[in-house]
Amino acid sequence: MAEIIRPTLVLDKEICLRNIERMALKAAEHNLKFRPHFKTHQSAEIGEWFRLFGVDAITVSSVQMAEYFATNGWNDITLAFSVNILEIENINRLAASIKLNILVENKDTAKIIAEKISHPLGVYIKIDTGAQRTGISLSKTGTISSIIKELSLNEKISFKGFLTHTGHTYKARSTNEIFSRHFEAIFKLKSLKQKYQKEFPNIEISIGDTPSATLATTFDGVDEIRPGNFVFYDLMQFNLGVCQLDEIAVKMVCPVIAKHISRNEIVIYGGAVHLSKESITNVNGKQMYGRIRITKDNKKILLPPLNYVSKLSQEHGILKITHNQLKNFNVGDLVEIIPVHSCLTANLMGNYQTTDGKIIKTMPKY
Amino acid sequence: MAEIIRPTLVLDKEICLRNIERMALKAAEHNLKFRPHFKTHQSAEIGEWFRLFGVDAITVSSVQMAEYFATNGWNDITLAFSVNILEIENINRLAASIKLNILVENKDTAKIIAEKISHPLGVYIKIDTGAQRTGISLSKTGTISSIIKELSLNEKISFKGFLTHTGHTYKARSTNEIFSRHFEAIFKLKSLKQKYQKEFPNIEISIGDTPSATLATTFDGVDEIRPGNFVFYDLMQFNLGVCQLDEIAVKMVCPVIAKHISRNEIVIYGGAVHLSKESITNVNGKQMYGRIRITKDNKKILLPPLNYVSKLSQEHGILKITHNQLKNFNVGDLVEIIPVHSCLTANLMGNYQTTDGKIIKTMPKY
Repeated sequence: MAEIIRPTLVLDKEICLRNIERMALKAAEHNLKFRPHFKTHQSAEIGEWFRLFGVDAITVSSVQMAEYFATNGWNDITLAFSVNILEIENINRLAASIKLNILVENKDTAKIIAEKISHPLGVYIKIDTGAQRTGISLSKTGTISSIIKELSLNEKISFKGFLTHTGHTYKARSTNEIFSRHFEAIFKLKSLKQKYQKEFPNIEISIGDTPSATLATTFDGVDEIRPGNFVFYDLMQFNLGVCQLDEIAVKMVCPVIAKHISRNEIVIYGGAVHLSKESITNVNGKQMYGRIRITKDNKKILLPPLNYVSKLSQEHGILKITHNQLKNFNVGDLVEIIPVHSCLTANLMGNYQTTDGKIIKTMPKY
Repeated sequence: MAEIIRPTLVLDKEICLRNIERMALKAAEHNLKFRPHFKTHQSAEIGEWFRLFGVDAITVSSVQMAEYFATNGWNDITLAFSVNILEIENINRLAASIKLNILVENKDTAKIIAEKISHPLGVYIKIDTGAQRTGISLSKTGTISSIIKELSLNEKISFKGFLTHTGHTYKARSTNEIFSRHFEAIFKLKSLKQKYQKEFPNIEISIGDTPSATLATTFDGVDEIRPGNFVFYDLMQFNLGVCQLDEIAVKMVCPVIAKHISRNEIVIYGGAVHLSKESITNVNGKQMYGRIRITKDNKKILLPPLNYVSKLSQEHGILKITHNQLKNFNVGDLVEIIPVHSCLTANLMGNYQTTDGKIIKTMPKY
């Protein structure tokens, strides 16, 4: 890391490849289509690594991201974001050039899509299986049927099935709770599929979140998984019991700029514009923005959790450090921060430096 | 706003110019050098607006930002970030081409700077006046004197004086508390200046934060102010009593993508990658990520605070909406979100669209 002089997001390609391989094998083992979400890494180059494991279809979270990956050779993309009808013209253009699927969750939107789309387009109905972000609740079969009816008015549109993001697994207090939310989601979607399968024999069930995709061992009735975060994992996933620390593929390397022994604090160059203000609760009940790895005698050492990133301003980070560790920090050192939420950190940083010094770019945002 | 189809940071140039003019007049009235912090807007074009009000010296928060503004014609820049010695070569290069000031807060760093700098460079000693982020506490005059001594070994270096960022005004619970922290900071810095003024008759006191710069009416003994956020202000400043809502110059315009009446929620396209996860506490004790303005009968209406952005995921925002306001939201509408922290929002968005439709770019980050 000798050449790093400012906050740099370092990517361990080996860990990343292992994470991809493990998930690809798991999908194959359970006979699931693997359609990874690319919103975490947002990089055409990292995207290519997935092809090594047979991936040919992906998930994205914005029209711009779909355009970027389409330009980079991906021609089977699900835009897993309840459709923003103001972008309907861009969606129609994309549908002309690639195999595109979108998500619908209300009748008015379905009506507009049926009116405006002039190229083949797959449409999933977004179901809320408990995360309470987007999606129709299971009980609203009237709405579901009326959406299907609206969509059927346009012969370019195929009704693909039911899709959910079991995002409330991120709020689980135990891995058992992750399992139970996963099973509940599958149970709900299977009952829906059964109801509509007579009329639409090819409809599918697509589920998404990294906690379920990583931990669950049964996927009975599921056709497709769309996890994204697993490519890097992060501290949030570790705290949930979803990954091990050595499976986290990205670390923010930051210079130490000040040492305040009297208040057990180290100041690093690395703040909210690098890590993001996503926080989790530390073992001491305080908010934390990352854990710390140092290099000592040429070895990487993960410090115990009472050493942590305790505050972030725009460019600065404050590390709370236990008394016995303070001696390991000096102005000009580089320390590694394990990010709380790798998706937001990667989005802010815009590129990666691999452990062997190569720069990997992400999609241009503006 | 008819042409906006996705989350867009809209800048009201008139409000922004008024904010700049008011602060420039205030500085002139109090005989203060006005060295605005450009980390909030990060834009060469917006930088030019400051020249209309006589600004010729600026503050930045990173070496890259200094390089960007130097390239764009600014030749008197203070890098208000306790120096990162790993960037010493870049700093030396910058010092060769512009009038550059940096911040030092410990002897080891001062020593390295004295050894490595070969072009004229101004150095402030960073004083902690209570914010407890960076800086030396007032009582450590031994450290201060030893830093000054180290710096004096290099004749290219001028000791410029004492600089603080009274960042704990952001934690104030009343405007009175902002005043008292401001006065305390000035009091501390004046006593230091007195101590060293005999030896260094030209040393200055430089203070920084937007809350003090906006609200305080006396600056006795201060030579320079470096506020930044005032160019846009935001909800955090409004909640502190620092600005009025109609002085906030940026709003995030976001499409409505779903309406969930049963739980009083509206879903917008606009999430953590647009607004940032900076939050403040709402009147109901809950975390909030923004307030909401809607357009009704061609009028902009700010909704009462119980209508607010209650959750953010990567691309989605959840608005909690009171029952009587729900009727004012429909899928496909555009709503305005007043951001909690405009610096982080502007940093994420990377460019602005003015109210008359012009795109304003910011510094390239990668």
